Amino acid sequence: MHPAFRFKVSGLASRFILSFFVVLYLAQSVLAAEAKYVFLFIGDGMSVSQASAAEMYKAALKGEARAGVEKLNFSTFPSQGMTTTYSSESLITDSAAAGTAIACGVKTYNAGVGVDVDGKSMPSFAEMARDAGMKVGIVSSVSLDHATPASFYAHQKSRKSYYEIGLELAASKFDYFAGGGFVDPEGKKSKKEGDKVHVVEAIKKAGYSFVNDKAAFEALKSGTKAVVVNPRLQDEQAMPYAIDTRDGDITLADLTAKGIEVLDNPEGFFMMVESGKIDWACHANDAMTAIGDTLAFEDAVAKAMEFAAKHPSNTLIVVTGDHETGGLSLGFSGTKYSTYFKNLERQKVSYVAFDEEFAAWRLANPGAPFEKIAGLVEERFGLKVPTDSELAEMAKAAESSAYAKAVGSKFDMHLKGFELEDLRAAYARSMAAEKDNAQERDYLLYGTYEPFTVTLTHLLNQKAGLAWTSYSHTGVPVLTSAMGVGAASFSGFYDNTDMFTKFVEAMGLAATVAIN
Amino acid sequence: MHPAFRFKVSGLASRFILSFFVVLYLAQSVLAAEAKYVFLFIGDGMSVSQASAAEMYKAALKGEARAGVEKLNFSTFPSQGMTTTYSSESLITDSAAAGTAIACGVKTYNAGVGVDVDGKSMPSFAEMARDAGMKVGIVSSVSLDHATPASFYAHQKSRKSYYEIGLELAASKFDYFAGGGFVDPEGKKSKKEGDKVHVVEAIKKAGYSFVNDKAAFEALKSGTKAVVVNPRLQDEQAMPYAIDTRDGDITLADLTAKGIEVLDNPEGFFMMVESGKIDWACHANDAMTAIGDTLAFEDAVAKAMEFAAKHPSNTLIVVTGDHETGGLSLGFSGTKYSTYFKNLERQKVSYVAFDEEFAAWRLANPGAPFEKIAGLVEERFGLKVPTDSELAEMAKAAESSAYAKAVGSKFDMHLKGFELEDLRAAYARSMAAEKDNAQERDYLLYGTYEPFTVTLTHLLNQKAGLAWTSYSHTGVPVLTSAMGVGAASFSGFYDNTDMFTKFVEAMGLAATVAIN
Repeated sequence: MHPAFRFKVSGLASRFILSFFVVLYLAQSVLAAEAKYVFLFIGDGMSVSQASAAEMYKAALKGEARAGVEKLNFSTFPSQGMTTTYSSESLITDSAAAGTAIACGVKTYNAGVGVDVDGKSMPSFAEMARDAGMKVGIVSSVSLDHATPASFYAHQKSRKSYYEIGLELAASKFDYFAGGGFVDPEGKKSKKEGDKVHVVEAIKKAGYSFVNDKAAFEALKSGTKAVVVNPRLQDEQAMPYAIDTRDGDITLADLTAKGIEVLDNPEGFFMMVESGKIDWACHANDAMTAIGDTLAFEDAVAKAMEFAAKHPSNTLIVVTGDHETGGLSLGFSGTKYSTYFKNLERQKVSYVAFDEEFAAWRLANPGAPFEKIAGLVEERFGLKVPTDSELAEMAKAAESSAYAKAVGSKFDMHLKGFELEDLRAAYARSMAAEKDNAQERDYLLYGTYEPFTVTLTHLLNQKAGLAWTSYSHTGVPVLTSAMGVGAASFSGFYDNTDMFTKFVEAMGLAATVAIN
Repeated sequence: MHPAFRFKVSGLASRFILSFFVVLYLAQSVLAAEAKYVFLFIGDGMSVSQASAAEMYKAALKGEARAGVEKLNFSTFPSQGMTTTYSSESLITDSAAAGTAIACGVKTYNAGVGVDVDGKSMPSFAEMARDAGMKVGIVSSVSLDHATPASFYAHQKSRKSYYEIGLELAASKFDYFAGGGFVDPEGKKSKKEGDKVHVVEAIKKAGYSFVNDKAAFEALKSGTKAVVVNPRLQDEQAMPYAIDTRDGDITLADLTAKGIEVLDNPEGFFMMVESGKIDWACHANDAMTAIGDTLAFEDAVAKAMEFAAKHPSNTLIVVTGDHETGGLSLGFSGTKYSTYFKNLERQKVSYVAFDEEFAAWRLANPGAPFEKIAGLVEERFGLKVPTDSELAEMAKAAESSAYAKAVGSKFDMHLKGFELEDLRAAYARSMAAEKDNAQERDYLLYGTYEPFTVTLTHLLNQKAGLAWTSYSHTGVPVLTSAMGVGAASFSGFYDNTDMFTKFVEAMGLAATVAIN
């Protein structure tokens, strides 16, 4: 590492040595100006705690007591930075203002997509890359007209203008869109007057292949302009949670790999890949589902890393979150200094899938007592409803450490008396279909979620040593990780609007900025 | 360590050009090897949320709606890194294992001070710096024998061996200790047999000036070996919380500035400065008190930055936390996407000071109804106990948004019905001196704290938009910030044990390591 130099040079040799140092010194800056293949991965709602929870879960599965020694691939990137996420009006941003900050470099109000605080359209660096001759791809696990992907190609005063956003997608001249579907493709919620062309028609008319089945997706070739809507969708036109994915489903990693194939060309490309449901799972305080999607997100990043290994001199990969969701922390008052992440493995379905299952169960079992659902609770979440004699044994264990040691981990997944009380109360509310939670105390307990389901994820999370403070986003800064050409500039502590500038500089788009 | 060059080049010009590029290329690494004045600031229990809360509070005081635009000085450092903190046995570390990881570069069990997992003493880089001829200073706002400072000079199988740690301090041959006092200076809790020399006697015998008053502190001169115990202590031999500090008190910044004065010498120095009570305030879920100490910590860092401005070519400043405490998040379910950090300003005393005040009040007001303490609650925490008619008005505002708009912020600090219920229950427990919280539900509500006090800080924090998940530490990684010579190596995502190596390399202590 620390060389000692002894030179004796003249003529040709000195010229060679001179060039050597020139090359060494300038290598970094010269290369930094040539980020030709550029990836931006956005974990919606993902900050340090979300990524760390996934790492600790991976470690726990391997039986590693010192959970935390497993790294997500992007945690090993050489550049790591912290990014503030506040919007123009609030410490706590929404995804529209956050996406706009990253894509367009301006602070805007919550709900603004690709516009500044006055509603004026601002160019995104994805549009600038397109104008500079690069191909552009946009991938998201949620609907393609959702706030985060839309920030890169649309300009709307409200993120709720789904129809208009869909039309902007069709008119974007980007090369590849893939992920979920469209929320309002017929313009039913749009105030626009007159005939409304269907978004999919507009997409086809603009020359895109519209792909909605697996065979056609797999057959997509390099150079095709395509819009891919995953044939399997779950909720709100989004792809299924990773935990609910079935064999053969098209994953975020598949969409990313195909994007690379379709976009790869001598002029370079930019691809944004969003994992949008880490956020949704965190809103619902469902840690295992969030972890599942974080691991699927990591798989997508791995595809870019494989590409970068083949193009090390001109690829840039940046991984970030747009904000934190849920106030997730890696410690719970009840578990004190201990964590039991392996317990999360017992959860078999997302809160959304369980909501559906529970709704059907409620229909089939009107007025059923709590005890009747105990089997399903254990099957789906691993939580055990104790019998009265077990409760008595648990109380004894709580009072005598010797007895507790003797019974060992027998009651690890059994609900304690007060936990059982909470779950019964939530069950009663859910069976009565009381879901509005208008009273503030109820909102604190359940948010806008099914009381029974959210109480189940809360209890399982707490038994793992995880807890939440909110059903909304928070102001906790996010971690930005970068590797490859131009990655160094993503180190440090900066604002989400600075990311725009860093991309513009890394991709050599500065001239385009001046024109805009 | 540094490359040696021997040139014999024909032509003056080529020699000049060659040198120019050599200098350019090697500038960074050459400078990086000369960190002669080295500062390590440890915010105990401080991670991203704690620092961000302080920044958001500063912004809120300035009337900045987009709280988050104010930066702590160390958030502007060019190098920022994430650091994992797990101990050898647990995802969640204690301060002893964390301090040992940073100081000695080894993972150890929770409670181990300066020893490896087998209890074997491991040298700290502070001791290595001493052996290399640098002066060494250790500053802490808590007792000088506490786990974090002790990790740099002591080697004990248990952090609770306060007496033995005190004796190790006296024998350390370090140059400057300053902060709180000693927990067991007479060895009352020590199992050591025979005569027990008083720690302060041992310190004096070792040639230190023992300083315990302000005049003597201020008179301390460069080159004096000194142990400074702050004349004003609050709890457990620790300095007062910043929020409880009176005019004329010696602050952490004062101790840091004096340390620089005492330690500055041609051979260089290393100084560790710990703010130990950010952690204690976070254990107690008292955000305003934690923020106060974080701002006082920033003031101490500022002293090092002033020094660095005078010695830019050979000063290194590193600021980190040893772990996160409390699971603090910058968002609360009840306040959703809003934050009201300015509300925190209404808190006038720390939870410790209020505990004392409340204990006296309870003695003077046996069996007093809750209403009697309402005035004190408002005075100390800004929380208003509503009258029945105000409660009715609040309910009306909650139901009608037009009415809510009309009454404006009139009820911002009024306790809502369910909040009042919680506070009354806590008051009843505290008045009955029920503080053991043995039932788990009570532990979740109050930890090991005075139920009335911790409920007050919870309610005020929630009204600001802040919330907690634990009364213990968590596994959330911490942020490490660095500026100056060798700072670049502190970028990235690494483990707390790696910090030892980074310091050793930055300070050129590698040879010493090989010897040890």
